[in-house]
Amino acid sequence: MSEPDFKYFPRLRNQLFHIVFGTDTRAGKLFDIILLWAIVLSVLSVMLESVKEISETYDTVFFISEWFFTILFTVEYILRLSITAKPKKYAFSFFGIIDLLATLPTYITLFVAGGSYLIVIRSIRLLRIFRILKLGRYLREASVLSNALAASRYKIFIFLGAVFTLAMIMGTLMYMIEGGESGFTSIPRSIYWAIVTITTVGYGDIAPQTVLGQSFASMLMLMGYAIIAVPTGIVTSEIAQAEKDKKKEESSGRGVCVACGKKGHDDDAIFCKNCSAKL
Amino acid sequence: MSEPDFKYFPRLRNQLFHIVFGTDTRAGKLFDIILLWAIVLSVLSVMLESVKEISETYDTVFFISEWFFTILFTVEYILRLSITAKPKKYAFSFFGIIDLLATLPTYITLFVAGGSYLIVIRSIRLLRIFRILKLGRYLREASVLSNALAASRYKIFIFLGAVFTLAMIMGTLMYMIEGGESGFTSIPRSIYWAIVTITTVGYGDIAPQTVLGQSFASMLMLMGYAIIAVPTGIVTSEIAQAEKDKKKEESSGRGVCVACGKKGHDDDAIFCKNCSAKL
Amino acid sequence: MSEPDFKYFPRLRNQLFHIVFGTDTRAGKLFDIILLWAIVLSVLSVMLESVKEISETYDTVFFISEWFFTILFTVEYILRLSITAKPKKYAFSFFGIIDLLATLPTYITLFVAGGSYLIVIRSIRLLRIFRILKLGRYLREASVLSNALAASRYKIFIFLGAVFTLAMIMGTLMYMIEGGESGFTSIPRSIYWAIVTITTVGYGDIAPQTVLGQSFASMLMLMGYAIIAVPTGIVTSEIAQAEKDKKKEESSGRGVCVACGKKGHDDDAIFCKNCSAKL
Amino acid sequence: MSEPDFKYFPRLRNQLFHIVFGTDTRAGKLFDIILLWAIVLSVLSVMLESVKEISETYDTVFFISEWFFTILFTVEYILRLSITAKPKKYAFSFFGIIDLLATLPTYITLFVAGGSYLIVIRSIRLLRIFRILKLGRYLREASVLSNALAASRYKIFIFLGAVFTLAMIMGTLMYMIEGGESGFTSIPRSIYWAIVTITTVGYGDIAPQTVLGQSFASMLMLMGYAIIAVPTGIVTSEIAQAEKDKKKEESSGRGVCVACGKKGHDDDAIFCKNCSAKL
Repeated sequence: MSEPDFKYFPRLRNQLFHIVFGTDTRAGKLFDIILLWAIVLSVLSVMLESVKEISETYDTVFFISEWFFTILFTVEYILRLSITAKPKKYAFSFFGIIDLLATLPTYITLFVAGGSYLIVIRSIRLLRIFRILKLGRYLREASVLSNALAASRYKIFIFLGAVFTLAMIMGTLMYMIEGGESGFTSIPRSIYWAIVTITTVGYGDIAPQTVLGQSFASMLMLMGYAIIAVPTGIVTSEIAQAEKDKKKEESSGRGVCVACGKKGHDDDAIFCKNCSAKL
Repeated sequence: MSEPDFKYFPRLRNQLFHIVFGTDTRAGKLFDIILLWAIVLSVLSVMLESVKEISETYDTVFFISEWFFTILFTVEYILRLSITAKPKKYAFSFFGIIDLLATLPTYITLFVAGGSYLIVIRSIRLLRIFRILKLGRYLREASVLSNALAASRYKIFIFLGAVFTLAMIMGTLMYMIEGGESGFTSIPRSIYWAIVTITTVGYGDIAPQTVLGQSFASMLMLMGYAIIAVPTGIVTSEIAQAEKDKKKEESSGRGVCVACGKKGHDDDAIFCKNCSAKL
Repeated sequence: MSEPDFKYFPRLRNQLFHIVFGTDTRAGKLFDIILLWAIVLSVLSVMLESVKEISETYDTVFFISEWFFTILFTVEYILRLSITAKPKKYAFSFFGIIDLLATLPTYITLFVAGGSYLIVIRSIRLLRIFRILKLGRYLREASVLSNALAASRYKIFIFLGAVFTLAMIMGTLMYMIEGGESGFTSIPRSIYWAIVTITTVGYGDIAPQTVLGQSFASMLMLMGYAIIAVPTGIVTSEIAQAEKDKKKEESSGRGVCVACGKKGHDDDAIFCKNCSAKL
Repeated sequence: MSEPDFKYFPRLRNQLFHIVFGTDTRAGKLFDIILLWAIVLSVLSVMLESVKEISETYDTVFFISEWFFTILFTVEYILRLSITAKPKKYAFSFFGIIDLLATLPTYITLFVAGGSYLIVIRSIRLLRIFRILKLGRYLREASVLSNALAASRYKIFIFLGAVFTLAMIMGTLMYMIEGGESGFTSIPRSIYWAIVTITTVGYGDIAPQTVLGQSFASMLMLMGYAIIAVPTGIVTSEIAQAEKDKKKEESSGRGVCVACGKKGHDDDAIFCKNCSAKL
């Protein structure tokens, strides 16, 4: 969090900076809490507007709340842009773009008719919550999780590729076994069924009726049941590794040998295991 | 388990204390077993009363059993309150409140008509079983489990938050793709579908019908299938850690160095790793 | 496998013993393979007899096959009983009882009409396969698995108890929220629904229709999704431990120090870590 | 990747070898990318041809594309066969057979009417993608995964056997409890239901209706829920082991003792643990 420069109104700007971007002052915390509620309420209003019975009765309420939140978020966006020291960097950062997208859809509906498809973009506002949650303890734990996932991404890709190939071959087989009846009307649909089955979701809108089809389906289920162990195993071993690394890093500051510079000593070591100098 | 004070009838009270709160005497064990059956039967009677065919035939049986158990639990509650040394502490403890809630609902139905909503409170009686199970071996294992869960609570929160955000965005997307047909009638309903799908429950009451919708659903399933690995990984690594800690603690009694007081030596260590004194 | 005594026909009996109970001779292996097929075919015939279309056409085939397998298993049972050295111990062992149960049902149907309920007992014949599979490699691996499960049985009990309690409370809640409509007609049925949901099975024969009910159901699903991590974590950490123990045990034979008797040295250790004698 | 011999046109052949089999030249990479797209498009065309509405409209497009890809793959197969140094070894290798199967089905439909069953073989073309993905990083990670699965194959077999036996016994029980109603019309069908339930797929096309049946089903679900922990535990502990082995092997190159040749020293070891020579 780089300090802003102090060209005009240096004091005011500095104070605003601490309120808007900071979290350590009382005003900064209040700002975050108000923003949190504004985001939650604006998303909730988008959700409820899609329920026919509610939207017909409270038509004007939704119209007003939509414009209220849009103007609020616009003011906030301009504020952030003007008080940060590096406006360009902010504008093109992940949260900068999300902040902009939170305001745009409502303005577009003024010019373009039928902008109802922008509803998805409006629900993206929820992502802004993570900006506020990006604090202390949560951030550290989230980094352990994302490191573990990043480290196992190659294995996860291979795994998903293998599962998808299995789904394609089993889907094609079932299309031929079950024929047009009982929902297996085309290969893509059968592949959809195979994925529904392997992942153990099991809607039941498509289900095999013949004895041969049910036997193959049983095989596929048992395979899916055993296969789910694979991503779990991968992520578990990576998380265990990530936890270990985090601990080592935390203790390594304390555990550096002043004599030879060796890191990573045990927590209760007294002598360096490399050169026997006292730690 | 603090000993009660001995103001009046010190002998009787002391004996009762060992029967009601203790588990090491024969009478204490018998008391626990009778209580266990009373709880199970009272909960069972609440459950069966809700089945129309049964409740109509055995109307009076349920009425009698309900009052029998209520009076039994009331006597037990007063007994516990009067023989413990610290009645206030007991009354506001977790099990003290549960014990009180086990008796109240039936009395309230005397004064308030239509107290059928108190059925939930009555089924809470089941929680009292844990008081009886809170013995020896079970308690130790339960503490390992709850420690592991407590240690991973931040990661679990982040995980559930990420899953819920994913469900909201995918739900909104599917609402737009599938339209009003095939059950996706509003965004909240679509989010409900997304949660049903990610968690691999898959009722099938709402299921995509269009090709695009099925493709997106397949993606969501595969993501849910891979995502389930995350909480498993978190809890597994925490349980492994908790197990290790428990073992270290258990062995540390034996492994304390008499010379320097250092704990946590390996099981087969002969010399203290801290001061080299013989263990 | 104790050697039989040699009172009468010592040679013949000894040979039969090696064929029937042993697996190291050619005849013993052949005996096992024939028995394996007899078991599989007899179970398959029981299964297929329950399919109406098949049983009506091949009525006599099933009758003959049933008596053929029953007599075969009876001969085998008598043979085992007569050649073993300790007939009583065999008769009351796990596999002794299974072997007897494999023959009884068919005889009972001679005297008792409508013995169709013995079908379950007949399908228990399948368990006999494990006797034949109880060989070498499989036995060792199975013991690792069963040790891990046995070691975590207390934790699994606590876990299942907690899940069941959660299902009861949530089931009672949903019964009150959803009312008689949409399948939640009684508390036991609602508990059944809660278990179907927590375990992520999700038949969809009972599914919430109200907004409040769907919100609670979503919560329950997310909890079930996170809860599944617990048994996995327990068993994983126990299997890892069991694997480690097995390895240590295997290497301990080789790794016993002749000087001090210390076990459990590393695989590549040359000197005893206890007394520094050469291993 | 053995170098081809240079009998005729040694230069051209060598260049082609590097393009077709190699991946380190620019032409080789381009060849791989073109092939990747050809495979994906040919499989996609097979999938879409099975959708009635599409296949009726674009009849000729599918006919042309099918022959285009078949001829392309035939040319590629002949090319590979002619430029490799050991044509026989290639022809009977896993990918050699897959490459041949990718071309055959279309030719067979010329002579045999109704060769629509060859659709499965045509969808096997997708497997050829793995040849292209078999590169660097992916290959190494895939070998960790397949080693872990291979090491735990005995445990997985035992596990699947136990699950299947459980499904048979529970299926037979449910057939007797539920009778012909609610879908449990025969034992094989009930076993199918039991597998659908244990694996938590839960289609809901067959679901218990009686109270006793629902109680047994609940038990089966809870068992399935706890059982899923077993394969996960097995694979997790194997993957953790495989990861450790891989790391040890990678570091062992650096850690070989020049004096005695001992491998597998710790990362921070300075002296050989076998002969005490400096590393």
